[in-house]
Amino acid sequence: MSAIGVIATLTVAEGKNADFEAVFAELSAAVRANEPGNLFYTLTRSRSNPQVYKVLEQYVDQDALTAHGASDYFKAAGPKLGACLAGAPEIEYLDGL
Amino acid sequence: MSAIGVIATLTVAEGKNADFEAVFAELSAAVRANEPGNLFYTLTRSRSNPQVYKVLEQYVDQDALTAHGASDYFKAAGPKLGACLAGAPEIEYLDGL
Repeated sequence: MSAIGVIATLTVAEGKNADFEAVFAELSAAVRANEPGNLFYTLTRSRSNPQVYKVLEQYVDQDALTAHGASDYFKAAGPKLGACLAGAPEIEYLDGL
Repeated sequence: MSAIGVIATLTVAEGKNADFEAVFAELSAAVRANEPGNLFYTLTRSRSNPQVYKVLEQYVDQDALTAHGASDYFKAAGPKLGACLAGAPEIEYLDGL
């Protein structure tokens, strides 16, 4: 079992920040309530570009990350988050140590 | 009071990975033991370049981040970590939400 880190970089369209943050808040509450294998799921915003958000995430193992992506609430949030974005998300997977 | 996220990207010199990871393990244990204002301090490694490490960090506020940087153990770790690096660290500060 190896932990996995994720940095998800999301660029939000101008005028969509409040919508994005509301959808994300609902998603992160569901993650916290349902995923014992998620260690953190933390939304941050760039100081140099207020349209750029980075989600810092850690999972106890690949199974936990797979369960996250397969959850109903994650799948439901996808189109709602996507409607707020100015481009494709960049997802970086990192090996925990 | 606003949370602060940090992504610290550290490029380790070839052959120094074990030394780096040992120094970091000591530092992260000290952070966990002494910093109630640190929410996580997680070492990860790039999957595309095994010399590149990213530390995912979150603090409850600026005071907690300042206390981290001012701690004796952080100052002591600096030169030991620096001796393992192939270049200057890149530190990105992010606003928590």
